[in-house]
Amino acid sequence: MLNIGFLNELLNTIAHQGRSLVDRARGLAGDAGRIDTMPLADLAALLLSARGEASGVVIAREIVSRYQRLETAQRHAFLLALNNSFAASPDDIRVAFSIYDSEPNARNHARLLATVEPPRQEVIRRLNLAPGNTGGLVRMREDLLDALPDHPELAALDNDFRHLFSSWFNRGFLVLRRIDWSSPAQILEKIIRYEAVHAIESWDDLRRRIEPADRRCYAFFHPALIDEPLIFVEVALMAERPAAIEPILAEKRDILAGPQATTAVFYSISNCQKGLAGISFGNFLIKQVVEDLRRDIPTLDTFVTLSPVPGFRRWVDAECANRTTTFVSDADRAVLAALDGEENDPEDMEDASRVLLPLLARYFLEARTPSGRVIDPVARFHLGNGARLERLNLFADFSAKGWRDSYAAMVNYLYDLKSIEENHERFATHGEVVASSAVSRALGSRRLHKSDATP
Amino acid sequence: MLNIGFLNELLNTIAHQGRSLVDRARGLAGDAGRIDTMPLADLAALLLSARGEASGVVIAREIVSRYQRLETAQRHAFLLALNNSFAASPDDIRVAFSIYDSEPNARNHARLLATVEPPRQEVIRRLNLAPGNTGGLVRMREDLLDALPDHPELAALDNDFRHLFSSWFNRGFLVLRRIDWSSPAQILEKIIRYEAVHAIESWDDLRRRIEPADRRCYAFFHPALIDEPLIFVEVALMAERPAAIEPILAEKRDILAGPQATTAVFYSISNCQKGLAGISFGNFLIKQVVEDLRRDIPTLDTFVTLSPVPGFRRWVDAECANRTTTFVSDADRAVLAALDGEENDPEDMEDASRVLLPLLARYFLEARTPSGRVIDPVARFHLGNGARLERLNLFADFSAKGWRDSYAAMVNYLYDLKSIEENHERFATHGEVVASSAVSRALGSRRLHKSDATP
Amino acid sequence: MLNIGFLNELLNTIAHQGRSLVDRARGLAGDAGRIDTMPLADLAALLLSARGEASGVVIAREIVSRYQRLETAQRHAFLLALNNSFAASPDDIRVAFSIYDSEPNARNHARLLATVEPPRQEVIRRLNLAPGNTGGLVRMREDLLDALPDHPELAALDNDFRHLFSSWFNRGFLVLRRIDWSSPAQILEKIIRYEAVHAIESWDDLRRRIEPADRRCYAFFHPALIDEPLIFVEVALMAERPAAIEPILAEKRDILAGPQATTAVFYSISNCQKGLAGISFGNFLIKQVVEDLRRDIPTLDTFVTLSPVPGFRRWVDAECANRTTTFVSDADRAVLAALDGEENDPEDMEDASRVLLPLLARYFLEARTPSGRVIDPVARFHLGNGARLERLNLFADFSAKGWRDSYAAMVNYLYDLKSIEENHERFATHGEVVASSAVSRALGSRRLHKSDATP
Amino acid sequence: MLNIGFLNELLNTIAHQGRSLVDRARGLAGDAGRIDTMPLADLAALLLSARGEASGVVIAREIVSRYQRLETAQRHAFLLALNNSFAASPDDIRVAFSIYDSEPNARNHARLLATVEPPRQEVIRRLNLAPGNTGGLVRMREDLLDALPDHPELAALDNDFRHLFSSWFNRGFLVLRRIDWSSPAQILEKIIRYEAVHAIESWDDLRRRIEPADRRCYAFFHPALIDEPLIFVEVALMAERPAAIEPILAEKRDILAGPQATTAVFYSISNCQKGLAGISFGNFLIKQVVEDLRRDIPTLDTFVTLSPVPGFRRWVDAECANRTTTFVSDADRAVLAALDGEENDPEDMEDASRVLLPLLARYFLEARTPSGRVIDPVARFHLGNGARLERLNLFADFSAKGWRDSYAAMVNYLYDLKSIEENHERFATHGEVVASSAVSRALGSRRLHKSDATP
Repeated sequence: MLNIGFLNELLNTIAHQGRSLVDRARGLAGDAGRIDTMPLADLAALLLSARGEASGVVIAREIVSRYQRLETAQRHAFLLALNNSFAASPDDIRVAFSIYDSEPNARNHARLLATVEPPRQEVIRRLNLAPGNTGGLVRMREDLLDALPDHPELAALDNDFRHLFSSWFNRGFLVLRRIDWSSPAQILEKIIRYEAVHAIESWDDLRRRIEPADRRCYAFFHPALIDEPLIFVEVALMAERPAAIEPILAEKRDILAGPQATTAVFYSISNCQKGLAGISFGNFLIKQVVEDLRRDIPTLDTFVTLSPVPGFRRWVDAECANRTTTFVSDADRAVLAALDGEENDPEDMEDASRVLLPLLARYFLEARTPSGRVIDPVARFHLGNGARLERLNLFADFSAKGWRDSYAAMVNYLYDLKSIEENHERFATHGEVVASSAVSRALGSRRLHKSDATP
Repeated sequence: MLNIGFLNELLNTIAHQGRSLVDRARGLAGDAGRIDTMPLADLAALLLSARGEASGVVIAREIVSRYQRLETAQRHAFLLALNNSFAASPDDIRVAFSIYDSEPNARNHARLLATVEPPRQEVIRRLNLAPGNTGGLVRMREDLLDALPDHPELAALDNDFRHLFSSWFNRGFLVLRRIDWSSPAQILEKIIRYEAVHAIESWDDLRRRIEPADRRCYAFFHPALIDEPLIFVEVALMAERPAAIEPILAEKRDILAGPQATTAVFYSISNCQKGLAGISFGNFLIKQVVEDLRRDIPTLDTFVTLSPVPGFRRWVDAECANRTTTFVSDADRAVLAALDGEENDPEDMEDASRVLLPLLARYFLEARTPSGRVIDPVARFHLGNGARLERLNLFADFSAKGWRDSYAAMVNYLYDLKSIEENHERFATHGEVVASSAVSRALGSRRLHKSDATP
Repeated sequence: MLNIGFLNELLNTIAHQGRSLVDRARGLAGDAGRIDTMPLADLAALLLSARGEASGVVIAREIVSRYQRLETAQRHAFLLALNNSFAASPDDIRVAFSIYDSEPNARNHARLLATVEPPRQEVIRRLNLAPGNTGGLVRMREDLLDALPDHPELAALDNDFRHLFSSWFNRGFLVLRRIDWSSPAQILEKIIRYEAVHAIESWDDLRRRIEPADRRCYAFFHPALIDEPLIFVEVALMAERPAAIEPILAEKRDILAGPQATTAVFYSISNCQKGLAGISFGNFLIKQVVEDLRRDIPTLDTFVTLSPVPGFRRWVDAECANRTTTFVSDADRAVLAALDGEENDPEDMEDASRVLLPLLARYFLEARTPSGRVIDPVARFHLGNGARLERLNLFADFSAKGWRDSYAAMVNYLYDLKSIEENHERFATHGEVVASSAVSRALGSRRLHKSDATP
Repeated sequence: MLNIGFLNELLNTIAHQGRSLVDRARGLAGDAGRIDTMPLADLAALLLSARGEASGVVIAREIVSRYQRLETAQRHAFLLALNNSFAASPDDIRVAFSIYDSEPNARNHARLLATVEPPRQEVIRRLNLAPGNTGGLVRMREDLLDALPDHPELAALDNDFRHLFSSWFNRGFLVLRRIDWSSPAQILEKIIRYEAVHAIESWDDLRRRIEPADRRCYAFFHPALIDEPLIFVEVALMAERPAAIEPILAEKRDILAGPQATTAVFYSISNCQKGLAGISFGNFLIKQVVEDLRRDIPTLDTFVTLSPVPGFRRWVDAECANRTTTFVSDADRAVLAALDGEENDPEDMEDASRVLLPLLARYFLEARTPSGRVIDPVARFHLGNGARLERLNLFADFSAKGWRDSYAAMVNYLYDLKSIEENHERFATHGEVVASSAVSRALGSRRLHKSDATP
């Protein structure tokens, strides 16, 4: 049949490309080539050879398991070899393009695509032949990301990893699992380790977050990485939107009776795999959890976060240092400087509030990076998901980190399923921050205040 | 960081490309665009838009579930729309190539790659966002393969499906499961339906193949397609290499006691998903099963198939019709013609044997297709896996199919782990059919016979 | 401590009792006693000895596995040995009673109890020490029930089995599992085999009963007998109470859309284990399924059976044969006799209906066995569960069995959770058959008819 | 049929007996009796009534869940009510005995047995009707054991619990599960809590005991109590028999490579459920684990414990205080008195060793309780299982507990499958302590020493 021929031709193109690369490996390997003594980069070449077709699983297992026993420098050397020796050939590309250019039909396009795709991608795909290697590849990219600052050329290899991981860790392949006190200890241990927002101090602390009837934790898993959560979210079921984190994490608190729960609060969301940086799951996780909670707990009508504002204080401090800003008056500077003590009396708090609230609103609504983006990364995440900036909470997180990063401020983002699409589009297309009127008013109050303060 | 910027730029390239395609969808959709009334092809465009980022799971679910309710003609229309409206842009490719050509660095290569990759691939990836859609996409490609003869241009879309499926159904993601009498009925039902070599007549027939202690059945599954075996193999544990299929499938037979099993016989291997045609699993399946059986049953030392020879009779008949051949004498023609009756007496059998055996050897060892390949597809599969052609069995399958396809002949291929790599390389590189000396002798006997017969 | 002493003393009583029985076994066993050559009854004695304490699991496994290889006559011999050799000792009972009688305190009562309990019970408990033996013991009782008619003295041993099984198969230990098309084939095979009401003809027939969205099947399992359903019920979800069985079992029928289901119809309930005869599960099964269905399908408001009337025709025929009855007139006899043909024309049906309906009502409401019980065993089961006799359906089951047993009649029993307790009590305490007014009216109609017919 | 009649008669006897007890409940309940306001003891009576037959599950659930919310005093009151109100009736027993005595046939025996069995047992069986209640009943017996010292009459009820639990928790119903780092946290938490020999200090400590490749932990579970281990054993795989506990529990130690493991060391065995006191599992657990380990790890050839000697120091101190003993000389007393300091220099140790070793041997081999039993409870357990006292280890456990209970001594018991039966029989029948010759020699050395010391 015509088309099988077409497909085979294509495969042959890829195979041919690979084969030219494995000449060295062949020479080394010969009939007596023993994979347990061959250098790793040669083994990678062997993977693309005819012998690789016959013994791909064995070679892939050997490469990944030996890689894991290497020192950092050796690992980086292997990654560089992968990056450089398995790139696409410019000459081949030129030839393929010129054929395509003269007759841009489907067949010539397919050949061009096969030529432009770097053989690195096929190496990575074949490294995944051995069951269990997916995890090893994720850790390999973790090394790669560590090496990038010193070896910027690895961006090419990283692009290949990212391309494949986006396909492999596609939402349709992920599985949502609830994490609770009956989950395996080896999973729970990772929840403790990976929690990035409000550190989990101990197994008792963990238990308080997952066992009570008014607490939930959900994670995405990939079937080929079954003991490793990819991302997880911690949820508190409450009777109202929370204005501070302490009551949620408190050791002693009343458990909310089931029917009183009206509000699901996403108070922590953490990525677990550095090697999957840039592959986005959070958006899907939150929406899936909202869907599941709505179905399971019909009394819930509000889905809201309690989120940190990690860039706020750095921005405020920069504004204060900037004598040309119109956002901060000298009086403000004095109030903020006074705050820097350990304890603040109520009067100071009130002063601070008058200064910080409009700054916080401005930080979200008006301040932008030089390239015009919203400054706060957490805001970019939730607004990008289609959430609305719902409420500003001063003095909401008095932990060392909360104070250091954001003068203790936190915010609520609201996930309102009916307006998520529109919110997302306003943010993605026009860069508009969708916020409640209360947030906008907080900004206004500041204008008032500023005009007062600047005669 | 530089590299994040690099990656983002790349994503933007892809997004930009998609966005120009969705202008029509946007016009249609507007704020009030309701996905349940929008044409399917517009929905596919919407998937690539900003709204698709926010609601990809919902849109993907809508497309695949509506597609499944379409008639054949409408399905083909959708596939053609997908094929034609989401192709890569030749103009964009030319621009990207010219930039790359003037400075072939990593960044320009990445941009070229992103431009050459057809947006169809991103559509397919996003169609997979909704859990459960993987199966729908496999069935979509099944439709596509059906449509290909009438619409050869769909080869381009098929290439995209095949590229993605090769990545998604990578060996590392597959799970081997034993199939036995405690397996779910819905899986067993599919084993009955998909068996392609020796049809399973009934549930009782199935039971005879999977329940006895000297029978095994294994299948590969993909986690996102959990109720659908991808490929399965049926195994008989025996005390010797079998020369015929009937004793294996017999209703009444003695069960072999555990310790007597020395030989694992792969007597049937069937692909289950037409939509995964061209994605190869069989090689991995057999090797994994060999590995597992060796570990579980230490008495096993031989791993061999009992395989059909589906192209043999057609080839013999063509040779007979060809008056210029030197392979068949008139005496042979007479013997074969006499065979075509229903029953053959022992003497005829002996004659037939004298004629057929050397022809069978020649069919494997010397006869080739016009393009120089081994004729028999089953042979290509096992030899390509690195197996050896071990024994020729005349009068091994007297079923209607066995007689019609191969004059009742079957063969054994031997999987000898120590020589698989070398066998594969000899076959893949030099086209050499690795065969036992008995097979070669069968060929020789014929030569003798022919020289005898042609004075 | 006092109480430990008390308990130990008790155990010693039991041990002492056992020990006197094992003298023969000891003699045989000695140091060289090999359990694989010892007679089964001696092994049973050995189970109660000191050696039995050390090796109970091994001995129990040996006894049950050897028992299963015995012929029927040998099995009965073993059961008789068990029955006769491990009875309580009348002399010991007399002694224990006289001590108790002179001072009926707790200690003396405990000793009396331990003396009255036959050592057979301890033998059976110890036979259960080996994992997997529970199933063997259930089959042993099946043999025992077969042997009872010829060996009425085995009633004593049967009493011990029944006592232990009531405790072991207590409702609290049973697990309800839904049976559907994803259940293991080995379970489904047993559903086919054990269906006792409306025979399942084939795997396709089974599938029609468990796969469609408007069908359910549930079974009780015991954890120690995990592949064996104990009892199961088949349920049809319908929009109304059914008056006949054929539409439920039809090969071609429309599947009811989810929200239209208002009525759960229990149309078949079958016990699976003959060895558990007399241990009642059906009552618990129906109530649990009602509870589960109510929770899962909120549109359901009616829970009703469609039940056979297995004793009806025999009773009618006996009445007809009885010339002194006042229930049947000669005209009735003629009508019924005319019915006995294969096909009945509508007019005959109408006549038959006039005769049969009041007889059917009377069969439930007035006819009784010599000892005063309701005649129909199915009626006793459902009325004993607290159901109400809701509707009489003539011409509801034209299968051979339906005609032969009940002139094709079936009835509906209604499970109304609010009145179950009261209904049960009226039936259990006063023997009152709780029936709908329609059923009572059917009786009345007959009276009228009879007075008409008897001038 | 005769026998069904026989069985029914028997059931009627039981029911009759129950019914007379529920008269009061009936009066209270009537048609309007609401189970949620009825006193618990009345509910227990209701369980035995006709209404209890119809609604047993509901009533049982109500009783157990309300019981769990009671204060201790109320719980004891309920247990006393159960004990006293549901006892067997002496008058009924006298009648049943006199019938039996005049004609001791099977039927009369059965009736006597049914009359002697206290209705309490049927109450407990019916309390188990509600799924999940088994755990509640185990905790109820825990309360009962707490109440026993103050209410010795509860021994009767305890006898009933024990009788039923022995049947319900029969070995054949228990499931062995390996506990490791992938076990649910709620199970692991209980391992930490219930460890009774060498306390588990933290989750890290737990992890060191179950995660390394040379450590194992196994527990018995009952299917109706699925989150609660009943008993568990911790095992270290080693290359030799250990002489001290510290190296096994050390934070830093080398993990033994798989093939070097020759010895499985049972270094801790703990019962988990106080409410199951007196129901023995340990014997079965150790033997099952030995069987499983032998199958899984063929290099293992030795199965040995490292066990505490909890009664040793109390016995030594009593001997020292006893001026008439011939076991301890004044010189010995001085050595032991010197030991009581915190640290001991090597020379003291040697002296101590000379004194303690023969005392330890004598403690096992010669010292006995007034009733003639071996003093050490751990020794009674292992010797009763058929193990052999293999080696005495002085200075093996310097924990506070080890020193306080046993002057730091520990011992090894050897489980040699070939001699378990014989060992058990020698111990159970003749009270003989089977010990290695090394242990016997340690005794002898003392004799020598003593004779030396006593001119």
